[in-house]
Amino acid sequence: MIERADTGFGLDPRLAMDTVFVADWQLCRVLLMDDARFPWLILVPRRPGLVELDDLDEDGATLLMHEIRRAMQMLRGVVGCDKLNVGALGNIVRQLHVHVVARREGDAAWPGPVWGSGTTRRYPESERDALLARLCSAA
Amino acid sequence: MIERADTGFGLDPRLAMDTVFVADWQLCRVLLMDDARFPWLILVPRRPGLVELDDLDEDGATLLMHEIRRAMQMLRGVVGCDKLNVGALGNIVRQLHVHVVARREGDAAWPGPVWGSGTTRRYPESERDALLARLCSAA
Repeated sequence: MIERADTGFGLDPRLAMDTVFVADWQLCRVLLMDDARFPWLILVPRRPGLVELDDLDEDGATLLMHEIRRAMQMLRGVVGCDKLNVGALGNIVRQLHVHVVARREGDAAWPGPVWGSGTTRRYPESERDALLARLCSAA
Repeated sequence: MIERADTGFGLDPRLAMDTVFVADWQLCRVLLMDDARFPWLILVPRRPGLVELDDLDEDGATLLMHEIRRAMQMLRGVVGCDKLNVGALGNIVRQLHVHVVARREGDAAWPGPVWGSGTTRRYPESERDALLARLCSAA
């Protein structure tokens, strides 16, 4: 029997509903937020029962930081931006997840945070698929 | 001549205006946001010229994650909370800084983010000094 790194991992239903799959990295599932207003990745460590960043062990936290930085570089390379926003909030969805958002001056929430701002605008399917292809080739 | 770890480091004037000093850790200056609505720490890596998390080298990023977790544990121990929010935004103040905020269900911004929410309410001096003393003894 092969031990799986993500034994017991399941994605919160709300995260599943709001995102599309990009890749599984060593620690995290990488998701694209289905909101065309902002290029927005979500990293979800594939370990069960995590809520806060300090629920991870030290090695896990180091790996998460590595993957956050990798996601930043991927977004910057694929879509370009003026600033990157990184956040772990979890006030609504408690499963530990980290937002990595490419921000542009003058975007729909600028200079405020994207969380809780306005109304999600889902991608047209063709636009979403084109972005996913670019992200996956960069992943 | 002794080389200082924070050679060239200077705190952004807006961060300086909005916060009070708590401690200098190995990497970061730890500040208390002067906003009595939320127990709120800000970590500022004491290296010049940083804007994004991936401007740090890998060792610096690992240390920053360590200090973020330390700040979470300090806040949780000193003030208690229902959730911790961690964010690196920097849309307004570009100097790299990480927010670590203790959230309580029903607080002034719950369940939204604290950034851009309502109006700062500075601490009464005695309350601020009492909190600072508890934070410093936990640091």
